[in-house]
Amino acid sequence: MRYAIGIDLGGTNIKSGVVDNTGKIIYKKKITTTAFLGKEVLIQQIKELICKILTNSKVKNKKIKGIGLGTPGIVDKEKGIVLGDAANIPGWKGVNIKKELEEFKLKVYVDNDAKLVTLGEKEFGVARGVKNCICITLGTGIGGGIIINGSLYRGRNFYAGDIGHSIIDLNGKQCNCGSFGCVEAYGAKTGIVSLAKQLIKKGFKTTILKKAKNKTENITPYLIAQAAKEGDKIAKEIFDEVTKYLSIGLINVIHILNPEMIVIGGGIAEAKEILFKPLIKNIKKYSPSSVVFKNLKIVKAKLGDKAGIIGAAVLVFNEEKNV
Amino acid sequence: MRYAIGIDLGGTNIKSGVVDNTGKIIYKKKITTTAFLGKEVLIQQIKELICKILTNSKVKNKKIKGIGLGTPGIVDKEKGIVLGDAANIPGWKGVNIKKELEEFKLKVYVDNDAKLVTLGEKEFGVARGVKNCICITLGTGIGGGIIINGSLYRGRNFYAGDIGHSIIDLNGKQCNCGSFGCVEAYGAKTGIVSLAKQLIKKGFKTTILKKAKNKTENITPYLIAQAAKEGDKIAKEIFDEVTKYLSIGLINVIHILNPEMIVIGGGIAEAKEILFKPLIKNIKKYSPSSVVFKNLKIVKAKLGDKAGIIGAAVLVFNEEKNV
Repeated sequence: MRYAIGIDLGGTNIKSGVVDNTGKIIYKKKITTTAFLGKEVLIQQIKELICKILTNSKVKNKKIKGIGLGTPGIVDKEKGIVLGDAANIPGWKGVNIKKELEEFKLKVYVDNDAKLVTLGEKEFGVARGVKNCICITLGTGIGGGIIINGSLYRGRNFYAGDIGHSIIDLNGKQCNCGSFGCVEAYGAKTGIVSLAKQLIKKGFKTTILKKAKNKTENITPYLIAQAAKEGDKIAKEIFDEVTKYLSIGLINVIHILNPEMIVIGGGIAEAKEILFKPLIKNIKKYSPSSVVFKNLKIVKAKLGDKAGIIGAAVLVFNEEKNV
Repeated sequence: MRYAIGIDLGGTNIKSGVVDNTGKIIYKKKITTTAFLGKEVLIQQIKELICKILTNSKVKNKKIKGIGLGTPGIVDKEKGIVLGDAANIPGWKGVNIKKELEEFKLKVYVDNDAKLVTLGEKEFGVARGVKNCICITLGTGIGGGIIINGSLYRGRNFYAGDIGHSIIDLNGKQCNCGSFGCVEAYGAKTGIVSLAKQLIKKGFKTTILKKAKNKTENITPYLIAQAAKEGDKIAKEIFDEVTKYLSIGLINVIHILNPEMIVIGGGIAEAKEILFKPLIKNIKKYSPSSVVFKNLKIVKAKLGDKAGIIGAAVLVFNEEKNV
């Protein structure tokens, strides 16, 4: 049996574990991120976490093939440097996290978090055995990973899979990236929450605000999904509207890549039918030409919040195989 | 030296030739298509053309490795069947062109025309040596081909590369395919010409109509490009407007695939600077986040109207290599 340490770095938590080469997490540890204290503190926190794992996991260190880490932001996988801004981790751009972690005398592999979720789902999740698929993660932002001919496709300079910043309404609203009408401006957390706030402000009757303890700043996609599950009409309408934009983002990537499967992960995918039902309805509505969608599977990611840890370990196993 | 017959089937002409394995066309023949007379007549016409090539080309038949044919419409490359409607060739959907041509006792390979242009440009054109690139052809419709890791990527059921039907304005005008706001509805022949007609109808002063001998039905993208070259302001504005939509289609595919190069071919690409200058300006305008565009080459296809013939021959050479 081979093992790898998988680390899933986020703006709120760091999830980590020791994963064996069948995809099983045999030791798990989750800590709260202190990203707001700056990158030095965060790096120190990750190092201490690795120390604890190496000490407590009961796996002989020489059986551990390496450390895999997924981080928000685009990553130069070869150098292990974070190339783009990372949502919720101020100052993270430019950090050479690979170099930092190499002091443990283990091989270190770093990649973008959504790409590693994709890798996890491909190897041990819902996309096992699938040759060509696209995985998107819906959360604070929209992440993406592309599997082509069974391998993760990274593109020329590691940016491939950036479905969130494809433009689906050139007259649409401005996205954080500066462009107008990006899928991410509508289909991720900010877009969903701001739509809810708008409708509440307009006086529509909904249970969302009550769920948020009457403070609009407490509104989350999770609460909206809860309200929708309980039959709240406005909450349902929000998902209908949001999936309109998401569906077009997916229609485009489906037309370009003609995959076997679309995997949808990230926190918002946990809304399950509340998300998937209007999403599939809108895909059919906005792309009546059906051939490209024939037998296409659009499914929820299977590994849930463990996908990042498992994917990071898969990165290690894959890379070590190629050595 | 190895040889292949390359055939580029279009709604207006059939271009064909014998191509050697250095990409040189050593014998060439072009005939007018009688597509309007129905598929039987067209198939007969292709067969007669192949007879003539085999008789007249001076290459020993046993040195010819096979027949490659590019056709409009999506093609099941394995079976050699046209799966989708083919622009300008009525009744072509469902034809098993591979089976029809196998009577010559040569290997027959069939694929979509834009995919073969891509293959030609990759092997002997502007994309030689490029690992990941996207080629789009601008003509009656918008075709596309994707090279990933040095090979043509076809997707699950041969539809990959259909950039023309990606949606860039969900509130936009209806496309022939039934969807709204497809790139093809704006950036191909019909969209360009209808924009010119609209502006003329509104009374804008332009030399386009004169070039079309005062008949709006004579207006072509070629004439509009000619007018623009001579300084006609309205003609220039048409290209500015059209490239706005094209640029967003490209921005999306660039974000998804992060290629090294975008190759633009097809008749409309022959407008050269008239097309490329506003296109690149609009890409910069609509996608201010620049990293993914850094060092990205956006170039005109090199093989011109020979790309289809050469690409069809490349298909033969590639497939025979894999036997």
